[in-house]
Amino acid sequence: MSSKVSVCDAVRDEVKSFSPYTAGKSIDEVKEAYGLNSIIKLASNENPLGTSPRVQDTIKLHAASVFRYAQVGTPHLIDAIAHYFHIPNDSIVTGNGSDEVIDMLIRVKATSGKNNIVAFAPCFSMYKVLSQLNGIEFRQTPLNDDFSFDWDGLLKLVDEQTSIVFITTPDNPSGYAPAVEEIIALHSKLPASCLLVVDEAYMDFAENAENHSMLPRLAQYENVCVLRTFSKTFGLAGLRLGFGAMHPELAEYLRRIRPPFNVNILAEQAGIAVLSDTPFIEETLRVTREGRAYLTQELEALDFTVYPSHANFIMVEAPEDGNYLNEELLKRGLIIRPLVKGYNLPKHLRITIGTAHENKVLISALKEILNAE
Amino acid sequence: MSSKVSVCDAVRDEVKSFSPYTAGKSIDEVKEAYGLNSIIKLASNENPLGTSPRVQDTIKLHAASVFRYAQVGTPHLIDAIAHYFHIPNDSIVTGNGSDEVIDMLIRVKATSGKNNIVAFAPCFSMYKVLSQLNGIEFRQTPLNDDFSFDWDGLLKLVDEQTSIVFITTPDNPSGYAPAVEEIIALHSKLPASCLLVVDEAYMDFAENAENHSMLPRLAQYENVCVLRTFSKTFGLAGLRLGFGAMHPELAEYLRRIRPPFNVNILAEQAGIAVLSDTPFIEETLRVTREGRAYLTQELEALDFTVYPSHANFIMVEAPEDGNYLNEELLKRGLIIRPLVKGYNLPKHLRITIGTAHENKVLISALKEILNAE
Repeated sequence: MSSKVSVCDAVRDEVKSFSPYTAGKSIDEVKEAYGLNSIIKLASNENPLGTSPRVQDTIKLHAASVFRYAQVGTPHLIDAIAHYFHIPNDSIVTGNGSDEVIDMLIRVKATSGKNNIVAFAPCFSMYKVLSQLNGIEFRQTPLNDDFSFDWDGLLKLVDEQTSIVFITTPDNPSGYAPAVEEIIALHSKLPASCLLVVDEAYMDFAENAENHSMLPRLAQYENVCVLRTFSKTFGLAGLRLGFGAMHPELAEYLRRIRPPFNVNILAEQAGIAVLSDTPFIEETLRVTREGRAYLTQELEALDFTVYPSHANFIMVEAPEDGNYLNEELLKRGLIIRPLVKGYNLPKHLRITIGTAHENKVLISALKEILNAE
Repeated sequence: MSSKVSVCDAVRDEVKSFSPYTAGKSIDEVKEAYGLNSIIKLASNENPLGTSPRVQDTIKLHAASVFRYAQVGTPHLIDAIAHYFHIPNDSIVTGNGSDEVIDMLIRVKATSGKNNIVAFAPCFSMYKVLSQLNGIEFRQTPLNDDFSFDWDGLLKLVDEQTSIVFITTPDNPSGYAPAVEEIIALHSKLPASCLLVVDEAYMDFAENAENHSMLPRLAQYENVCVLRTFSKTFGLAGLRLGFGAMHPELAEYLRRIRPPFNVNILAEQAGIAVLSDTPFIEETLRVTREGRAYLTQELEALDFTVYPSHANFIMVEAPEDGNYLNEELLKRGLIIRPLVKGYNLPKHLRITIGTAHENKVLISALKEILNAE
């Protein structure tokens, strides 16, 4: 058809090969499909406590202000982040989620047709999607069989044209977190022009985070960028807020290319509010750690193989087919994340740590499903 | 310094030439700098009525939900937009402001080193910034002296490698809007592979919009994309929401590359709410049109040259130096937009239409300033 030829004639070759993002089922979709009134969603690593009360008050207080453009660069939010994380203001770049910071890093550092980007497989899908969108060669090496990091395999892919290496720690979907010394050793072997991006989306949940996180060590390594998100510990997934912390010179380049109003005005205010809500943050960490220990113990008792997790989720290998268990859980109003799609792991499941009540309901449901066979 | 070489060694050449966005003064900055308690801001073309009451209620109602990720693709918002604007669902792509839709259009349609993009000068700064960020040659031809559109000049820049032509109607900063027949004539002269992007951010405010807007005619022209924003009539500037309406095949490519959670959950809910708030929309249009007529009459009486405007702002040529008038207005707590920076028009000012009260305060202040000389 000639109409097809013209409208998309000049579509970029890179774009033609893209598939749209396939999301998990939403709460409303599951309610409708299975005729259920109440749902427990343990699929997206959201905060088990919901939204911080202080954030809710702040949003209500600023509801009348959304007709105004936010102040460019969200300086008050930057101040709050700098203060909370003990990092310099000029090292911080905020984004519409850390997804946008990843895109900005690639756009600043990588030239199409020249540079490449290196990561493990599997990894966070946006590293690959955004590399390809920017026309950058994306190289991947498999994780070890136990989901730990094969540093030698990674380094074999790196050359003088590697502009970025992405790692996620704690990793998704495994929850694995290497000792920070291993990351420092990797950094020492990278070319001087290569940026090591350490995505610490889940670092708050790590046992002894000080042994794993690069954020407090950032000033010593100028070719390192640490990513953090407000979607997990801080409970702002729907508002979209993340940031990168990096050398101020590199941060300045990101600020130059950043769309002027990328962070919305309620994300800015909510971000400031939640950083001051110490009881909410502490309770989030307590519930997550206790729930992780509880689920580990109960799932092992049910013959699941539980991978040790430093995150607010755990990956398990089920004694049964993962899709079957997932379908049975959906019928009972429980949404988790099977890993067959995207990861090709038919018996593996990823389960977000919920509240104590949610975790108990999950275990009861699994007992029922496994005993019914 | 060796440190400078390494950290930003591989920064893309295109990025090195970027300057950061320079914003106008915020309300808080003006308050502090001039020791003022109350400010009237007529600088950013925001809604004079503020935030819709229905939107405020919706934001408060959903404040507790921001810990959840939004549903990918914001289907309920798409439904509401389709219904309100009488366009097909599958023609609509939403963005974190229309800025993001512009970026997506360029990323889908234009290949670096091959294609070019064409627009008038001056034009909305993001057309140029985002073309350059994507490595695309950006070509501009001047507007006519009266700020009308030199179509022949524009067409002279177009060749077989032109992937996008951007026009803004009503235009910013002039408020000029050509007859829609002129846009259709332009479209008929473009190569079949070239997309005409018609940015109608201010179209709601046009006199007889049906004589200017391409949106109702979209189905007839497959290589046209119309951009709309929720920042003006709908009063959601701070929440970031815009959309493009285009041929469904092209829209499908944008959906493939869109970050899955680009529109935040409160923008989604607020967008749905405001489209149903007919009294707010009607009052916004009434206040804007009446204020535009009032300001035109009063400013002409003060020897300003007023350009006929179809937008929620008016551009004037002042009888005095624009920076002087701007500075005197700032002292009196009035923020407008001088056009010397960015537009190199030292006597031109852009004034957002305010409420009847705000407009009167502005005219009184100008009378005082001009009579004091």
